[in-house]
Amino acid sequence: MNLKKILVASSNPKKVREIEEILRPLGIEVVLPPEKVEVEETGTTFLENAYLKVKAYFERFGIPALADDSGLVVEAIAPLPGVYSARFHALEEFGREEPVPDADSANNRKLLRVLKGRGDRSAKFVSVVVLYSDEGGLFAEGEVRGRIAQAPRGDKGFGYDPLFIPEGYEKTFAEMEPQEKHKISHRGRALRKLYNLLRDCAKG
Amino acid sequence: MNLKKILVASSNPKKVREIEEILRPLGIEVVLPPEKVEVEETGTTFLENAYLKVKAYFERFGIPALADDSGLVVEAIAPLPGVYSARFHALEEFGREEPVPDADSANNRKLLRVLKGRGDRSAKFVSVVVLYSDEGGLFAEGEVRGRIAQAPRGDKGFGYDPLFIPEGYEKTFAEMEPQEKHKISHRGRALRKLYNLLRDCAKG
Repeated sequence: MNLKKILVASSNPKKVREIEEILRPLGIEVVLPPEKVEVEETGTTFLENAYLKVKAYFERFGIPALADDSGLVVEAIAPLPGVYSARFHALEEFGREEPVPDADSANNRKLLRVLKGRGDRSAKFVSVVVLYSDEGGLFAEGEVRGRIAQAPRGDKGFGYDPLFIPEGYEKTFAEMEPQEKHKISHRGRALRKLYNLLRDCAKG
Repeated sequence: MNLKKILVASSNPKKVREIEEILRPLGIEVVLPPEKVEVEETGTTFLENAYLKVKAYFERFGIPALADDSGLVVEAIAPLPGVYSARFHALEEFGREEPVPDADSANNRKLLRVLKGRGDRSAKFVSVVVLYSDEGGLFAEGEVRGRIAQAPRGDKGFGYDPLFIPEGYEKTFAEMEPQEKHKISHRGRALRKLYNLLRDCAKG
C-alpha cells in the first residue's frame, strides 16, 4: 500500500489528534478531509459502518482513508446501544434519529433509566478501525470491559465516558487524563493493533 | 501478523484450491478446517458476511482464517441477488431460505424469469476476501463487469457462471477454463489484491 499519507475520515478533532499521535512513528502524514462527506451509517456492525465511511472518503479524495466506528455494548441490553450509541436516546424515545441538544447527556440519562433496577451493569466499549484504499483494506478491533456507574462522573472525554468504569479502576473514563484513557481504551487498543499491522504485515 | 499458516474458512474444495494456488508463492501453508463451523450469514454486505465467517473460524481453531464472500449484482434489480445470490430462488419463491435440490440451476432459472422483458442485462460479480486473526484483519475487493446471457451456457464453474458473460467476451464464465476465468474473475482479482497487501503492506 502506498501509505505516505492517510486521511482521517472524521470531523472530530480529538479523534484525529489521537490517531496522528499513534501513527507518527511510522512516518505517515495524517491529513484531514478538505470537506466533510455525508455518509449514512446504515451498517449493523462497527466494521460495516467504519467501512462505509472510509470507502466514501477514499472515493471522494483518492487518499487512503482511516475511520473508526465505536460504541458501548451493555450486557443487560446487548447488543445495544452498540452501533446506535450516538443515537441511543433519540432512537429509544422517538424511534428515529432526531437531532437533540447535548446528545451525550441525553444518551447517558437514557442509559441510566434503562438500567434502573437491573443488577447486571457490565459493559464494554468496542472500536473497529479500518484503513482503506483501492489496493485493499486493513482493520483492527479493540475493546475494554468495565461497568456502568450509578451516575455520571467527570468532564473529560466524550460520549458515555462519564458512565464507564473500566475493569480494575474505580474512576470513569471521563475522570481520566487522555493519555491514561488511551492506554487502555478500545480505540487506543484498536489503533495500536493497526499500527502493528502496518509495521509488521506479512513479515510473519 | 504470524502468517506461516492460513486456514480457509470454506468447505468448497474448488475455492480452497484456487486460494492455495494464488498464495503459494508467499510460502504460506494453506490448510482446511478440521471441521465445518456453522456461521449464520446475517450481514447485508459481502464484507460483513466474510468477516462473520473468518471470525468464527479463527475463534474456533486459533489459526489466521481467510474467507471469501461473493455474489452477483444485477443492475436492473440491484443490489440483488447480491448477498442473497446463493439463496435467491428460495428467498424469492418462499420468502425464506429453503434447501432446494440443485440450487444453482434454480437460481439461474429464477434470474432469467426476473429479467424477462427487461432491456438492461448488465451485471457484475463482486468478491470480498478477508484474512483475520486476533492481530487484526486484511481485506480486498474484486469485481468483474459483464452481462446476463439469454440462456445458460457451459458446464464449468458454479453458481451463476453459466449466465455471466464478462465484458470483452462472448462466452460465459461456465464456458471458460478455470485459469482463464481466474485471470479476470472477481475472486481472482480480490485474491491478487490480498496477495499484494500481504507482500507489500506498509512498505509504502
